[in-house]
Amino acid sequence: MNRQRLARSRPLTMEELPDVVQIAHGSGGKLTHQLIETLFVPLFDNPCLKALGDQAILDPSTERMALSTDAFVVKPYVFPGGNIGDLAVNGTVNDLLMGGATPAYLTASFILEEGLPTKELAFVAESMAIAAKKAGVQIVAGDTKVVERGAADGLYITTTGVGFVPKGLQWSPAHIRAGDVVIVSGTIGDHGASVLAHRFGIDFESQIQSDTACLREVVMAVRDLPGIRCMRDPTRGGLATTVQELSHTSGLNLRIRETSIVLQEDVRGICEVLGLDALYLANEGKLVAVVAPEEADECLRIMRTVKESKDAAVIGEVTDDIPGFASLETYIGAVRVLDLLSLDQLPRIC
Amino acid sequence: MNRQRLARSRPLTMEELPDVVQIAHGSGGKLTHQLIETLFVPLFDNPCLKALGDQAILDPSTERMALSTDAFVVKPYVFPGGNIGDLAVNGTVNDLLMGGATPAYLTASFILEEGLPTKELAFVAESMAIAAKKAGVQIVAGDTKVVERGAADGLYITTTGVGFVPKGLQWSPAHIRAGDVVIVSGTIGDHGASVLAHRFGIDFESQIQSDTACLREVVMAVRDLPGIRCMRDPTRGGLATTVQELSHTSGLNLRIRETSIVLQEDVRGICEVLGLDALYLANEGKLVAVVAPEEADECLRIMRTVKESKDAAVIGEVTDDIPGFASLETYIGAVRVLDLLSLDQLPRIC
Repeated sequence: MNRQRLARSRPLTMEELPDVVQIAHGSGGKLTHQLIETLFVPLFDNPCLKALGDQAILDPSTERMALSTDAFVVKPYVFPGGNIGDLAVNGTVNDLLMGGATPAYLTASFILEEGLPTKELAFVAESMAIAAKKAGVQIVAGDTKVVERGAADGLYITTTGVGFVPKGLQWSPAHIRAGDVVIVSGTIGDHGASVLAHRFGIDFESQIQSDTACLREVVMAVRDLPGIRCMRDPTRGGLATTVQELSHTSGLNLRIRETSIVLQEDVRGICEVLGLDALYLANEGKLVAVVAPEEADECLRIMRTVKESKDAAVIGEVTDDIPGFASLETYIGAVRVLDLLSLDQLPRIC
Repeated sequence: MNRQRLARSRPLTMEELPDVVQIAHGSGGKLTHQLIETLFVPLFDNPCLKALGDQAILDPSTERMALSTDAFVVKPYVFPGGNIGDLAVNGTVNDLLMGGATPAYLTASFILEEGLPTKELAFVAESMAIAAKKAGVQIVAGDTKVVERGAADGLYITTTGVGFVPKGLQWSPAHIRAGDVVIVSGTIGDHGASVLAHRFGIDFESQIQSDTACLREVVMAVRDLPGIRCMRDPTRGGLATTVQELSHTSGLNLRIRETSIVLQEDVRGICEVLGLDALYLANEGKLVAVVAPEEADECLRIMRTVKESKDAAVIGEVTDDIPGFASLETYIGAVRVLDLLSLDQLPRIC
């Protein structure tokens, strides 16, 4: 096995960070991790942040409040199947859900470029209102800033969500065990492929739609199953990055099977045309669940009754073969280690 | 009195909004209000947002949690006395404090421009860590996105804060009564003047320092006084905008006296040189408190014992003369109605 590739978990020193910010620092992959682990975590030192989940769960013994924040800079800000507005609501709501929290409140901060058509802003805000209603959250506070032409790109939105975690529930990659089952809630790569096709003006027979959706119904349907170890939404960096992160945090090996992963035909098409790997394409309405083997069937059965996860499938298992790394069993049966994305396939995907 | 000027509180219809976003939509003044009231509030309809405070206080009967969010786009992002990092921490912490909340947690989302020197980012993040420690808050969640060169201007930061409001405390402009006293915690216009002087390369004998500071100690020192009606931090739009908003929400008249308002010499100088009104310049470490007359002296006495409010002064009173509007008694004794800022004196001040 390639030692250099395995060396990625060593934190860098400040001196080893590149001198300037690069596009790939926003990819959700290796460079993003380096920036966070080397720069932010030591400075903002506290146990919640150190856990590096997509949400912070505060004071688990008493308040059980979950907090999550995300900046959205997707380009273009309207794409087939959605726009930056519903993406910003669904993205943060899903991050709360992945910690087992019931989403309750959102804040929204807008950075608008001078000259943005008011109608476009209204369209985006309407999408947010609809998405918030669907997700069962209230947008309770906000802020609006305007920068000059050229100092932003239409608009950026940061949403922050507050949710509440039921007593006793504590999903965490630390609970993953060898023998656990890896489930994904549907087809992968739809959001990334949709934005990419739209950005580069590539048309297939049917337009690829982003999967942006709220996962509330899925999570609520299975939340009471005690066999659920943890959930993650494979957004920026895609499924590969998520199983790699879960392997790294659990110290085990999530082994996924290429034959079990389902792609829409057009997503497969655009990947072939552009030489992209769907495993690294962003999803905005899917989740990965790691579940105890004795409850995997029941979890799958329930998920398939919910619209957003009707195509849920078991895609792999947890082993202790290659501790701390995810691996892929390819079509031809070979097993290769999955690495964190180190260059950005697709900047500004969310 | 000018009817047109007084007509500003009528909400616009969507059709009456300008077709494109203008710089002044970010000023915190009239156009910002129009955008929020016409576009966001009806869409994100809920009682917390309708209150239009700088923080949302959730479910006052039980959880008493305060939430506040702000985007920071200040240009330049380093200025005398501070930078976008401490500004982003202090600004959101102060918004929580203005609702009487004890600040507890922050999230931070970064939008970075490709090519931003890593050292600059580290400098900003360090300032945030120091400011968070001073303010007694933990930064518990974050997000980092990178956009291409030209698609942002160095970096933008959105912080969201969570705080907890003691049982029984409910500061609100609705509690303001005629006869109440208006206190400001120090000199005004320092932040706006500092950024402006720096941006335009104007040097006075001593460099004007931004007043960016956390108001925690000030608020904690006086929070138990039952005579405090409400507090606001006069940031974007300055003191004039704050007293105008409080007048509007309370339906009373906050009358402030030009002779009681203290400016630093250099702030007065830059206003004279550039024809600006310090009443509309941003402050980032000051508060306005409206206090029952019988407790005003005690509040002032306590505030003057705290470093950040050592120059606190009574600057006016509440009357029922001109319901819903703030007024200024000028040096020569004339009284004029203060209007909301309708053009942006100084874009990207915070």
